[in-house]
Amino acid sequence: MSGTLYGIGLGPGDPELMTLKAHRLISSAGVIAYPAPDTGASFARSIAADVIPAGVREIPIVVPMRVDRFPAKEIYDTAAGEIAEVLDSGADVVTLCEGDPFFYGSFMYLFERLSDRFPIEVVPGVTSLTACAAQLQRPLTSRNDVLTVIPGPLPDDDIRTRIESAQAVAIMKVGRHLKRLKALLAAMGLLEKAGYVERASLADQKVHRLVDLEADTAPYFSMILIYKGDEAWTLPPFCSS
Amino acid sequence: MSGTLYGIGLGPGDPELMTLKAHRLISSAGVIAYPAPDTGASFARSIAADVIPAGVREIPIVVPMRVDRFPAKEIYDTAAGEIAEVLDSGADVVTLCEGDPFFYGSFMYLFERLSDRFPIEVVPGVTSLTACAAQLQRPLTSRNDVLTVIPGPLPDDDIRTRIESAQAVAIMKVGRHLKRLKALLAAMGLLEKAGYVERASLADQKVHRLVDLEADTAPYFSMILIYKGDEAWTLPPFCSS
Repeated sequence: MSGTLYGIGLGPGDPELMTLKAHRLISSAGVIAYPAPDTGASFARSIAADVIPAGVREIPIVVPMRVDRFPAKEIYDTAAGEIAEVLDSGADVVTLCEGDPFFYGSFMYLFERLSDRFPIEVVPGVTSLTACAAQLQRPLTSRNDVLTVIPGPLPDDDIRTRIESAQAVAIMKVGRHLKRLKALLAAMGLLEKAGYVERASLADQKVHRLVDLEADTAPYFSMILIYKGDEAWTLPPFCSS
Repeated sequence: MSGTLYGIGLGPGDPELMTLKAHRLISSAGVIAYPAPDTGASFARSIAADVIPAGVREIPIVVPMRVDRFPAKEIYDTAAGEIAEVLDSGADVVTLCEGDPFFYGSFMYLFERLSDRFPIEVVPGVTSLTACAAQLQRPLTSRNDVLTVIPGPLPDDDIRTRIESAQAVAIMKVGRHLKRLKALLAAMGLLEKAGYVERASLADQKVHRLVDLEADTAPYFSMILIYKGDEAWTLPPFCSS
């Protein structure tokens, strides 16, 4: 009887946005795995740090943080092999995932290597999408709105067409594309409809209307939300931006 | 000093998919509000039932379940008035919301009536979107996929165009549109790429490939997810469908 591979969504960063189920499974884990950069701490592990039991076996999946180098095939082959050995022994492996495992998550690289051989349970988590909407104090979607989620690296023409045809838009992975995206949204007359959130729900988060944002670069964990409805929108004065 | 209005995302239905923050705020609530049908129990309240303290004041927002009658202006005016009185007295009000308050949620009807007068904090929750992906055992989005979320009531031509231009598609609010949507996806050759989930994460959930689904009608809480990638996809034999 093999063990189960769990992919656990931890939410956007605030440990309190973890689900009760994530908390239970991590608390009782014997083996955990998580993505980690080659320098610095693992973001996923840091979210769960207070819940991880002492003496747990840890399998960090160290992926160098180079842009456009995903996925690193050999790294995931090796990690999947190590995890498979644990599962074959009958023990479970709890994989810590930022946000939700299946929403632009690296868990898929383990999933595609192991799902034909082992039982896998994915525990969904709060995504950055709704965490950012909460911080911007504006509904993301309502009634029969169409929502489109667009990765920031896509070309301008593509992004423009997609924004034009949706009522609500999220642009993910803003990062080094911020300056270009600001120019595009200004040309489309949408700057005042756009909100910007960086490191949502963390102590050092930033929340701005895009029109007020002076920076031209952003960290990887940043997002632009556009709501094209007619409602006027301002960040309320009691907002934590 | 007025109280704060909390909009609390409870996740898709399994009480264990509530966040720790939702759990803390509901546990210590003095006044709760929640949407309720005119007959039967409130789904939102049922998710939180085991956490609601004894003796709490309850404000059910009773909305008759008629299709296409949303929003019921007078009902929300009255509820907002009652909630405003509590907030004016200095007490907080914790509003229970299925899924996430700002993701197709009725909380927006309170938010738009009260956000200019009172501090509001939205606590994001796990959406049905990623809960369904977890149950279908298939990544929702990866790499630079574009995701489009489409309400099922939209017309066929509109839905077709939007599906054609995205890599990943979620069709929400399937309900009485199931037969029409199945025919559309069959005509587009996408039946085998589509998964169907009803009442995700609840004890009586249903999980099917759409091609295997014989029903022609679905409950309101049902969703179709389409992933157009080249990967073959079958529900694994150990899936709980």
